[in-house]
Order: sequence, then C-alpha cells, then structure tokens
Amino acid sequence: MKQPFIMEEIVSVLKRVAPSNKDFVALHEPSFQGNEWSYVKECLDTGWVSSVGKYVDRFEEMLSEYTGVKRAVAVVNGTAALHICLKLVGVESDDEVIVPTLTFIASANAISYCQAIPHFVDSSVETLGLDPNKLADYLLEITEVRNNSCYNKQTGRRIKAVVPMHTFGHPVELDTLVDVCQRYHLELIEDAAESLGSYYKGRHTGNWGRATALSFNGNKIMTTGGGGAILTNDEELGKWAKHLTTTAKKPHNWEFVHDQVGYNYRMPNINAALGCAQLEQLPDFLTRKRALAARYHKVFSKVDGVSFVTEPDFGSSNYWLNAIMLSPKWSHLRDDILQATNEQGIMTRPVWKLLSDLPMYAATPRMDLSVAKQLESCIINIPSSASLGAVHVET
Amino acid sequence: MKQPFIMEEIVSVLKRVAPSNKDFVALHEPSFQGNEWSYVKECLDTGWVSSVGKYVDRFEEMLSEYTGVKRAVAVVNGTAALHICLKLVGVESDDEVIVPTLTFIASANAISYCQAIPHFVDSSVETLGLDPNKLADYLLEITEVRNNSCYNKQTGRRIKAVVPMHTFGHPVELDTLVDVCQRYHLELIEDAAESLGSYYKGRHTGNWGRATALSFNGNKIMTTGGGGAILTNDEELGKWAKHLTTTAKKPHNWEFVHDQVGYNYRMPNINAALGCAQLEQLPDFLTRKRALAARYHKVFSKVDGVSFVTEPDFGSSNYWLNAIMLSPKWSHLRDDILQATNEQGIMTRPVWKLLSDLPMYAATPRMDLSVAKQLESCIINIPSSASLGAVHVET
Ligand SMILES: Cc1ncc(COP(=O)(O)O)c(C=O)c1O
Ligand SMILES: Cc1ncc(COP(=O)(O)O)c(C=O)c1O
Repeated sequence: MKQPFIMEEIVSVLKRVAPSNKDFVALHEPSFQGNEWSYVKECLDTGWVSSVGKYVDRFEEMLSEYTGVKRAVAVVNGTAALHICLKLVGVESDDEVIVPTLTFIASANAISYCQAIPHFVDSSVETLGLDPNKLADYLLEITEVRNNSCYNKQTGRRIKAVVPMHTFGHPVELDTLVDVCQRYHLELIEDAAESLGSYYKGRHTGNWGRATALSFNGNKIMTTGGGGAILTNDEELGKWAKHLTTTAKKPHNWEFVHDQVGYNYRMPNINAALGCAQLEQLPDFLTRKRALAARYHKVFSKVDGVSFVTEPDFGSSNYWLNAIMLSPKWSHLRDDILQATNEQGIMTRPVWKLLSDLPMYAATPRMDLSVAKQLESCIINIPSSASLGAVHVET
Repeated sequence: MKQPFIMEEIVSVLKRVAPSNKDFVALHEPSFQGNEWSYVKECLDTGWVSSVGKYVDRFEEMLSEYTGVKRAVAVVNGTAALHICLKLVGVESDDEVIVPTLTFIASANAISYCQAIPHFVDSSVETLGLDPNKLADYLLEITEVRNNSCYNKQTGRRIKAVVPMHTFGHPVELDTLVDVCQRYHLELIEDAAESLGSYYKGRHTGNWGRATALSFNGNKIMTTGGGGAILTNDEELGKWAKHLTTTAKKPHNWEFVHDQVGYNYRMPNINAALGCAQLEQLPDFLTRKRALAARYHKVFSKVDGVSFVTEPDFGSSNYWLNAIMLSPKWSHLRDDILQATNEQGIMTRPVWKLLSDLPMYAATPRMDLSVAKQLESCIINIPSSASLGAVHVET
C-alpha cells in the first residue's frame, strides 16, 4: 500500500506547486519578456549578426560586472568554454584531470578534446558536487608531488587540474578545495555552467578557479540560444582566451596571420544580443526561482520518504534545477515515478548516468564512487522554470 | 609614371562599379530583406531559441533540397563542420591530410583537432584551388599503396584524405580529383564553405566529397550569424554526423546515455531561423552577385596589368568574393594598392597568407608550392556584397 502512495503524493505536490496552463510542464523553459526583441532587431537592422557588432563586447562587460570576475569571454557554448579553460591552465595530452563522475557529459568530453584523461571522483551528499575532503584523502594515498607537479603513482601520469561542478546551482565547498589544489599543485577550473547567480560565502561562483566555464544553453537559467563564456581574474589569461577562441589571428589591417592552432569559438553578435537582454532579467529570474524552491521545500518537507535538495549553509544557490531525493528505501521506485510524472505531462528526469559507467570512459582511473552511485539512484529533477515561480499558490 | 597610374585606375574602377552611399564600402555585408524578422520573432514568441524547435529541421531539409545532397546536418560553424567531416571519414591521430596551402586557417586547424597533420599542396591558376594534376604527379612520386591505404614513403605515415576548397566560390576540377582519390584510396572531403550556390558541370558543389563542409559565417554568401553544415550523400554517415554533433546521446525518454566522445556542435534554433530566411533569398543574392562580377569583368578587362578572376569553363561560380590578379610585374605594388583603397574607404584584402608559412605549420610536409606563392603575391579581394550588384551603373 505504501508504494503507490509516495508516487501519488509526488505527482500531487508537483501539480499543486508547479501548476501550468499548458498540458505539459517542462523541466526548464526560457522566458523572453525583456529587451530580447529590440536588441535582436537592432542586429538585423544594422546587419551586425555575426562577429562584428557591439553586443558581444557589451555582454562580456555585463558578465564581468555581474559575477565580479575581471574578464569574461563569450563563446559558442559551455562545452567550448570548458575546452578552452583546460587549454588555458596547460592541460596537455596524457595528463589526468580530476572531475566528478556525477556531472554532465561535457565535463569529461572537454578533457578528451585535450587528449587528457578524466579521473573520476566522488560527490558530497550536501552539495551534490565534488567532495573535497574525500579528494584530499585520496590524493594523499595515490599521488606524489615532484618538481611542483602532482603525479598519479599508479598510472605514472601527471594530474594537472581539478574541475568541480556546481550541481543544479548549488556551490561546492570551495575553500577546502582551493586548499587541496594548492597543496597538490593542481589547477582549479570551475564548471559554473549551472551556477550563474550562485554565491559561495557571498562571492559569485567562478571567482575561485583560474578559469571558469559558463553555459547559456536553452535549458540554463538564462539563454543565448546556444552559448557560453570563459571567466578569469587573470588579465593575461583573459586575453589569451579571446585570442584562442577567435582563430588565434594577430591584429592586422588586412593580413591573415595566425600564431597558433586556434578555434572558431566566438559567440555571434545576435546571440550576444539575446544574452544582454536575458542578463538584465537575471535578478528577476533568481527571485522567482528562489520563490519556487521555497514552495517546493515547504511542501516536500511534509512528504515522507522524499527530501527537497536545498542550498548548503555556506552558499546561496540560483536553484537553477530543482531536485528531490528519494530515501534509499524508495529508490527502486525512481523509474516508476519518472514514468508516472512524465505520463501525466509533468516533466521529470533522473540525474545523469555516472560518467565512469559510460563505455568510452570505462577504462579511466577513479576512486570509490559510492556516494555518487547512491545519488544517481535517488535524485529526480522536477519542473524549475522561472515562470512557475511567479504563480501564486497556496501551499 | 606607370605605378601611380595602375593604383589610380583600380581605385577609380572600384568607385564606379561598386558605388555606395556609405563612406565605407565593406568587402562583404549581409542583407536581411526577407523573412528573417518574422522567423526570429517566432522563435522568441514560442521560447524555442535553442535546441528545441522546428527551424533546425527545416533548414537542414532546405539545404539538402537546394544542394541536391541527401542529408544536411546544421552545426555551429564551418570549422566544426570540417572537424566532423574528417572524423566521419576516419581521419585519426598521426594521419596526414592533403589540403591546399592557399586556404583559410580553419582547413588546417580542423586537421589538427584530429591530431592529424596537414600536408600542403599547390594551387591551380585557373581555379585558385587544389591542382589535381600536380597532385597526381606528386602522389606517384612520394606514396605507396599498401592494403588499400596510401602511405607517405618519406614520413611513413598514412595519408587518409584530401580536402580541396572551392576558393571564393570557384569550383575546383572535381572529376580529375575524384579519379586521383580513387586511385590512391584517399577519402574526399569538400570544403564548400565559400561555394554555396556554385556548380561543377551542372551539379552543386558538395556532391563529390564523402562529406562536405559549409559555412554561414557573417561574411559568407548567406549567414546564420555563425553557423555551418555537414553535407553527405551517405545516409548512415549523415545519421552519425547528427549523433556526433549532439553529444552522442542515445535516444531515451529521460536517461542520459552517451555512447562515444561527442561534441556540442548543434546550431541553435534561432540561428537556423535566420538560415531559412536567408536561403529563401539565395537565388536573388546569386543573381546580384553575378551581375556585379560581370560589371567588374567588363571594366577590368580594359585595365592593363590587372585581370579579374572568373569562373572556370567547367563550372558556375557564386562569385562570393570577387578578386583581381595583378600581373607579376605589378605584384610589388600589392600592399600600396591595399593601403590606398582602404584609406579611401573601399575595403580590399590580400588572399590568405600561405598556411605552410605559419609558425605552427612550419614543420609539416609539403610539395613545391610555387603557384600558390605567386597567387599570394598578386591576388586582391574587392567589395562583393550582393547589395552592390543591385545598383545600376553605366560601365
Ligand atoms: C555541468 C555542465 N557543464 C557543461 C555544460 C555544457 O554547456 P553547453 O551545453 O552550453 O555546451 C553543461 C550544460 O549543458 C552543464 O550542465
Ligand atoms: C575555406 C573556408 N573553410 C572553412 C571556413 C570556416 O567556417 P567558419 O568561419 O564558419 O568556422 C571558412 C570561413 O570562415 C572558409 O572560408
């Protein structure tokens, strides 16, 4: 008798807290209520849709101002941003890069693009992100530091960098992680694709990594259609990021001189125009998302066997993507709950399959991943659009 | 007394043939006079700016219909398209790929992204593209075929593919090239970034390669802000191209399963919306560009020491980017002419610096490149926007 009950309760809560006048409630829908149209129209009217035009510069300045990170470089998407972040800090062929196993595929793919090898680590139940204490113990056991570089004693390879990810917008424990990175001579890159608008101890995420990646994909808290950005507090690195992402062309009136293998990762002006309009509305999106999360929190606290994922004490989350966790005794019902909710027009989703279990990453190094495995079995993402936060609901 | 004369003549011809009511005549400007507005607005109104939405599918179908190539996959830009084309035909780490030295940097970079090595070849004076006869002689000399693969006897490496480029829209001699590729077991990839609307013996370019790359960058004959496409007549390859460019995610209602290292190279829906509107106008752009080229041709035929670059007998060019060639005795004036025209508000440009001369490609294999070297010294690109073709001018 209890099984159907928890399913029905979840469905009923979702219907109440995230009501919609459509027959389908999406997991995350963008909202274009600001200056999107006028900025995009200006691009079309002036003919500046591509690499020429002012919106790319303006968007980069707005991002820098918003996050408090010195330099922002707009790029074609978050995956490209991650790829370039790894290049910037010197990840090379045959290096290992530490990355959580519980993250989106782009985290590992970007490492592969550098011919480097992802080394998968476990997550924390509190943040859903990389667990810095478990990492510290693990590094002590498997690495040795020589000539200011960290080596994996088992594989003989250099471990160059660590790429934590702020899952669903919840910041990881950065102070401890920074400390671990310093002790082991590891470069820190923040994958902040999901955490625009999220703060760690009062400062915006993306300020701890030597370089940080953002994403403005259509499912993110704000969108440019497709897009991303590289953030860095290091001016030189910022210049190099711009150079590398624009085919490494040296400035010249007319001559085509490129001084290294570069990328065409620039964000088109028309997408940056969208970005400017969306970023203007971000404070409003955040208010609405936090309101929605508060409602979910309140209501789910009365449902037995389910807990709503909240921000850690040390941080403020953008609540980009809301999530519930089934208690272990109900995790066998995960797929039934996904089935039931999706069938009733309420989009839900499990968390990513652990990257360490995918065929192309089967042979990569990894620590014990038991927490991530447990999280994989019990997390369910639930509707999170900012528009749902505006609806006033009696809970 | 003759030096200033040729400079003045060129400036005067450009002012007459490509007059403008702006104080600056660009090399190539896009034109948005069709349905750009209404399609883009629809994306914003429906919230479908990103990967969800109908314009990507529609744009792919329109491209396939227009070019006569079975399958088109829209991607983030032409560089990404080239990268995936190389992957599709099996270019691997340490392979050599034959590519003209006279082309845009993306051609060589895409090869580098596969950890393969560009092998630079010479150009033809007629097409400005790869010279298939010179290539045949060269391959006879330096390669041997074993187990249906072609090996460079000097480096010991496999030569896997040939990537000709249809320079400024003028098609290369494809029949001869196809024959050479077959004899030497080389995969043919067409870099048709510049040749949308160009035909070889009555059939659209892009139908000869196993895979073909297009670009819709802002300077191209039509634009999506930034964008590109992969074309292929092989259905299986087309499916794989779609899979590889969309993170290699396997279809599932909710689960994230990726079965190989994939890319986030998808074109956002809002950019595809622009693409649909632009492609509708392509026949009109072509008419205007051919009219402009005809005027240039007529007028420059009266200028001594300069010739206007025209399409080869076997093909029809889109005349994407118009070019003149200085006769060898005047090539020392190239930079002065560039200086004078740009100073007078008429944008001109030399052709690309030979890729084989750039620092990161200095140590790569190459044949004698004397024709390309000669072309580099005497080509000047001149204003080519479709809008200039509409102006009626007495010549
Ligand atoms: C954690 C994480 N990293 C990277 C990315 C890649 O961003 P994009 O989809 O813009 O390439 C995403 C989002 O898709 C993400 O969620
Ligand atoms: C010959 C050639 N190949 C490839 C490209 C790359 O296309 P994109 O700029 O869209 O990456 C271009 C255009 O820029 C090009 O002219």
